[in-house]
Order: sequence, then structure tokens, then C-alpha cells
Amino acid sequence: MKTAPRNAFYAQSGGVTAVINASACGVIEAARKARRHIGHIYAGRDGIVGALTEDLIDISAESPATIRALRHTPAGAFGSARFKLKGLDKNRAEYERLIEVFRAHDIGYFFYNGGNDSMDTALKVSQLGEQLGYPITCIGVPKTVDNDLPLTDCCPGFGSVAKYIAISTLEGAMDVASMARTSTKVFVLEVMGRHAGWIAAAGGLAGRKAGEPPHIILFPEIAFDKARFLARVQECVKSYGYCVIVVSEGAKYPDGKFLAEAGTLDAFGHAQLGGVGPVVANMVREGLGYKYHWAVADYLQRAARHIASKTDVEQAYAVGKAAVEFAVRGMHAVMPAIRRTSSSPYRWKIVPVPLAEVANVEKKVPRNFITADGFGITAACRRYLEPLIAGEDYPPYEKGIPKYVRIRGKTVRKKLKTEFKI
Amino acid sequence: MKTAPRNAFYAQSGGVTAVINASACGVIEAARKARRHIGHIYAGRDGIVGALTEDLIDISAESPATIRALRHTPAGAFGSARFKLKGLDKNRAEYERLIEVFRAHDIGYFFYNGGNDSMDTALKVSQLGEQLGYPITCIGVPKTVDNDLPLTDCCPGFGSVAKYIAISTLEGAMDVASMARTSTKVFVLEVMGRHAGWIAAAGGLAGRKAGEPPHIILFPEIAFDKARFLARVQECVKSYGYCVIVVSEGAKYPDGKFLAEAGTLDAFGHAQLGGVGPVVANMVREGLGYKYHWAVADYLQRAARHIASKTDVEQAYAVGKAAVEFAVRGMHAVMPAIRRTSSSPYRWKIVPVPLAEVANVEKKVPRNFITADGFGITAACRRYLEPLIAGEDYPPYEKGIPKYVRIRGKTVRKKLKTEFKI
Repeated sequence: MKTAPRNAFYAQSGGVTAVINASACGVIEAARKARRHIGHIYAGRDGIVGALTEDLIDISAESPATIRALRHTPAGAFGSARFKLKGLDKNRAEYERLIEVFRAHDIGYFFYNGGNDSMDTALKVSQLGEQLGYPITCIGVPKTVDNDLPLTDCCPGFGSVAKYIAISTLEGAMDVASMARTSTKVFVLEVMGRHAGWIAAAGGLAGRKAGEPPHIILFPEIAFDKARFLARVQECVKSYGYCVIVVSEGAKYPDGKFLAEAGTLDAFGHAQLGGVGPVVANMVREGLGYKYHWAVADYLQRAARHIASKTDVEQAYAVGKAAVEFAVRGMHAVMPAIRRTSSSPYRWKIVPVPLAEVANVEKKVPRNFITADGFGITAACRRYLEPLIAGEDYPPYEKGIPKYVRIRGKTVRKKLKTEFKI
Repeated sequence: MKTAPRNAFYAQSGGVTAVINASACGVIEAARKARRHIGHIYAGRDGIVGALTEDLIDISAESPATIRALRHTPAGAFGSARFKLKGLDKNRAEYERLIEVFRAHDIGYFFYNGGNDSMDTALKVSQLGEQLGYPITCIGVPKTVDNDLPLTDCCPGFGSVAKYIAISTLEGAMDVASMARTSTKVFVLEVMGRHAGWIAAAGGLAGRKAGEPPHIILFPEIAFDKARFLARVQECVKSYGYCVIVVSEGAKYPDGKFLAEAGTLDAFGHAQLGGVGPVVANMVREGLGYKYHWAVADYLQRAARHIASKTDVEQAYAVGKAAVEFAVRGMHAVMPAIRRTSSSPYRWKIVPVPLAEVANVEKKVPRNFITADGFGITAACRRYLEPLIAGEDYPPYEKGIPKYVRIRGKTVRKKLKTEFKI
């Protein structure tokens, strides 16, 4: 059945990554080739907020070179949002507003680029057709540094943060090894991953042989035992002269309390926010007296496009491209997932999986990826992780810094008189 | 006058850098070509401590490929030390021990690779000939991420940390800009530089036009004024939607007290060590209520060989090579310094400067490099800094991480029966 092209809406959601714009690039380049199906392409300024407030970016005002350059540009070029739509029963007004905006701009395709919460939102939007009588083709585009989406071998964004953390662990470890004889003996690197220890696990790629740093990884999946931890730190300093620790921000005590909230007060007696890195470093100082350094990579890790994984960039682009291809082939309420067909040599392909099976499911690091003592990664984990950080994909440089692109961001003229408060 | 070759001693000192091994490579490759003057080359294991304890590494056991690979390997391949020799009047025993070891191994050349304190040590060792009757040719090889040595346009090690911080500031800023509409509004990056704000200044290279991040740099050279700071943060969030702050670990109040020590107590009421980043972030939260993120780069910044400045690598190698060339030409008690002959195009050469004029002098960021309001860098500062971060010099990779070299580190057989406790 031949139908007139309808317009497409693309939005970025949740925490951004080094390669989410590579997915945008994939979506837009594929959509521009699908003229029989897709008319204009609009992006939400600041994610779904842009849809609710009718603040749409006109992608046709962006040159092919700009779109191409998104492939090597980190963070969210169109703006992202932390904004989770409630259920249709709880906030019908938001969904009615979405339909109002979509209808005004004849939007028939909805591409939503995000993680767990966003796949839930995409799923809800996919049901608008049946529930509110507005037909829309809805595809989720996976993205999360946390690597915790199910049904996909890995999540675009993760490979690059994993590569950054593996390299940073290696480099930080070489630094402390140099200094340990007369100075710092313990180096602590705090990494992201509130609920799953995938990023912390990636730190384990820094060492390949027994005894090589990192000597200790603290996973959210393994309940923290202070006495065992300090004993291991001491053992490492005695054996190797120093100790390197990678700690997940999600590391917690057996009662589920985060280490990060367990510790410190500011000068006013308020709980000191954030920083499991310094908390762990302080434990070492108080328990063992060693001189230490700690680093908190925070945004640097997920924005580090300068050292992105080539595999990750390719996969991020591929899921964006596949999202459009799936849509024009008539698929709906699916997410392009990465399926590994071989680890060595590494081979993968993109397959559709139902949004309903992805939304709100968290994939944690399985126990057999963590060594029996709970402090390291196993060979199976290494086999899983290594291909994901393979290859470099350097951005172009100008005057010593990467030449990242900024979009023009031309606003689409509003068609509605109504405003919407978010 | 033709004399028999004498052996050379090389040691790394103080905090290591991404390119100190490139200087080692320069020293060793040049020394291997100077067979008429230099016999064996030994390195101190863990810096000067290796000399005092007669723990010498036999460089002749290292292949040319290993030595070449030092050029792309961060941290101190031979081990470094935080160990400052006292004055000859205060600790004669240490100097006598040095001479004992040097004499036992016929060491006639002393190459000492370090920063301020180390140039002071090098100067003291250079005086051994006159004061204790042991003639030794002594050359300081400059190294410090702090960029605070006088008489040299810049210090090897600084260009790479500057590049890393400029890029990290850019990437972190793009991240928070993406998130600011509904989430994080303020991003704080803590950088090194206890006494001088050179590294903080490098953060300023992330933005080129007015209003581009970083919006605020906190220098050790400018007394911190909390009210003015908070007012500026608020202004930025109102104007740009977000605010990026680069803070030097050396930022301090008008009374000279570091911000980092001014703040927080741990759960036991002890002063919380380290982290001006979280201190500043907390001020923002308490004063303005904005959601924030903070990162502490710590060792990652000075070990980040993966994104080293090509200029810096070349200069680090050049000062090492020049040190040997100066020595065999009969110079003594000098340091190879970098002299800038042109900023645009950038041109430089290596010249000798007297150790006596370098030791214990600190070069701070001049006032005309900092904007009138104290929060940014001027065009003059940018002209100075930009060439130092120019060019990329990527290391080789294997399985997704850099292929850094480890030396064999063969120990030279001891000739002395005596031990020395450090």
C-alpha cells in the first residue's frame, strides 16, 4: 500500500554519551535516504520536552557535513532530558499534548534514543495509536553507558566509556606504581554505574596478567565487606608495593546502603554528597595509613569522544540507521539490538527486539563474570568486554582540541497556540 | 683533551608525567650515540633513592625498541621518588653516600629529570666536585606538569596535561549543556596545580568565544571571593542555562587558606582531605540550589599519554637529548630550557640555563594572562598556551588499550658492602 510520506521526530533522552550523536547521525542519514516514507525530520530540543513544548529543531536546516560530523561529536547535540512520562492512566494530559504536537506537524515516526526509562517511554508512545487513536510508528534507539539494557549484547555508549575507564585505570596505575616507593601507595578511581557494575568491570581490562592492576574492583553486584577489602589492600601493597582500586558509584553494603552515602558530613553537619572514591580512600587512610590519591571521572568518562571505541561508534551509528530501516519496513514498538554472532573474531548484527520486553528490565553483571573473591573479572568477562573497546576512532583536531560540531538548531515555526508547562 | 668514557646516571624525580619517559628516551638514545664520552648508562630505581641504596638499573639490558617505546609510555618507567636532599651542611652523610656509589660505578654524568625541588638537588650534586672532591658533570632535565620552572618558556609534561584538561573541559561542558534543561546545571572540574594556575588556565582553551565554557576558572593566583563567585555562577546559569567551572587544587581564600581544607568533616569529625571540586560544588548547592556534577582528574590528567600533546612529546625528547649533548660538550650545572622564538608559527629551540638560577624559583601565571574579573584567560594567555597543546601523538594500541612498554629493569650488580637506610 502506497502512502504519503509522514514526518519523523527524533529525540535524545537521559544521560548523554560519547556516541549518542553517532546514533542521531545514523537516524538522520537513513531518514534522508527514505524520502518515499519520511518527509521532514524534526528533533526535540532537549528531548521529549521539545515535543511537549512544541520546540522542534528543523533538521533540514543542517548541512550533510554537519550531520556527518555528529558521528564524531559527543554529548547530546539536540539537548537531552531527564523526563519520564508517567503511565497513561496517571497523566493523560502529557499524552494528549504529544498527540496534539505530533498531529500539528504530521509526525508519523517517533525515534527515541535512550536507556531503560526511555524505552519505557517509547513503549508508552507506541501504544498511543490504539489507546488514543493516533497512529505512530515508534522505534527505540538504545543508548546507555550503564550497559544494562536486556536483549542486546551491549549498549551503544558503553564501549566508549569502557575504553576510557580501561585506559584511565592503566595510566593511573602506571603513575602510582612510579611513585609508590616513597609516596602514594593507593590509587582509587571512582566510575559510574549506579545499579550495574559494567563500567567498573571495564577497569579490569587494564591488566592482563595476575597481579597487574587494578588489584581490586568494587562492584554494586557484590556486597561490600570492609574488613576483607582492607585486608586485600594491605596484601597488595605488601606484594606489589601499591594498590589500584576501581570503585563503582553503586558499591554498597550488605544492607543495600551505598558506600557513598555512608560516610561524610560537611562543616555544617549535612551529609556530604557524592564521591564513593574519597570515601574508600579515607577508609584506607584510617584503616591502614597509606598515602593515597583518588580520581572521580564523572562526566569525563561518558563524554570522552576523544578516545571513543571504534566498535562502539559503529554500533551507535548502526542502531540509528536500523531504527529507520525497521520503521519504513513497517516494524513498530521495537528496538534495534546488537546480537553477537562471534567473539573471536568479533562479529555482530542488528536485530529487532520488542520494546515491551526491554522496558524497565536491568541487566546486571552476571556472577560468573566476577572472580570468586568478588574483586576482579573472569576470563569470560574479558572475552565479553574486549571486543567492545576495540579500535580507535579519533575526531579531527584544530589548535590542539577536537573539532566537535554544533548544530544550527533552527526552530520549526510553531503551529499551536497552546502552551504546555513541564 | 681526550679522556676515557665515564658512566652516566639518570633518575626520575617527583610527580611523574605523560612524557617524562620521552625525556628518558632522549637521554638514553643520545647517550648511546656518545660512546666516546659515555660508557654505561644506569638509571636509579625509584629516582635518587636508587643511587643512595645502590639500586641501579642496567640500561644496556634494554633493547633499542624498548627505549624507543618509552617515547609513547607515560609515568616513570624507572620509578620516581619524592625525596629532597637536604643542604650539604645539614646532611653530609647523603652526599658522601652518593659519592661512594658514584665512585664505585665510575659515574661521571648525572642527569636528573624533575621539577623545582629536583633542580635544587641537581644543583647540590653539581657542587660535589668542589665541595667533596668528586668531579661529576651534572645536568638537570626539566619536567613538571605544574609549568612553574623559571627561565624556560614551558615545562615538558605541562603541554600534555594542558591538552587533556582543555579537552576534558570541552567534553564535560558539552555533556552538562545537553542535560541542563531538566537536570545538572553546574559542572565542576578540579585540576592540579597547588601553587600555580597554569593547568587551570589550560581549561580556558576549551572555549574560544565569549560565553563559551568554561565560564569560571578559579586560579591560585586570585584570592577566592565566595559572594562574587556565586553571583557569577547564577549569572551564567541565567544567561547560558548552565555553568562550567574549572578549579585549581590550589585555589585559596584571601588569608591563604586552601578552599580544599576549608570545608568538610568526615563522619568522625576529622577534616576531610582533598577535593576542592566537591567543596566548590557544595557551595553552589548550598548557595544557589543548582543540581551539579563534579570530577576530579587527579592522576588521570598527568598520566594521560593517550592524548599527549605532540609538541610536548617533542620537547620532552629534545630536553633529554640536549642534556647529553650539553654534558659531552663540557657544560655543567645547567638545564636545557625551551626558548620560544615565535608564537605564530610556533618555533622553539633548546638553550642551556644555569641550575643556580632555576632552583627553587616558582613561575606563576602572570596577572595579564588572567582577565580583569579574575575568572578567565586573556588573549595573551591563549597565545602562550595554544602552541603547547598542538598536535596529537597517539601511542600504538592492542586490544583496545595503549601498548605501553615495561622495561626489563635488570639490576646492576652491587659493588659496595655497605647499606644505606633512606
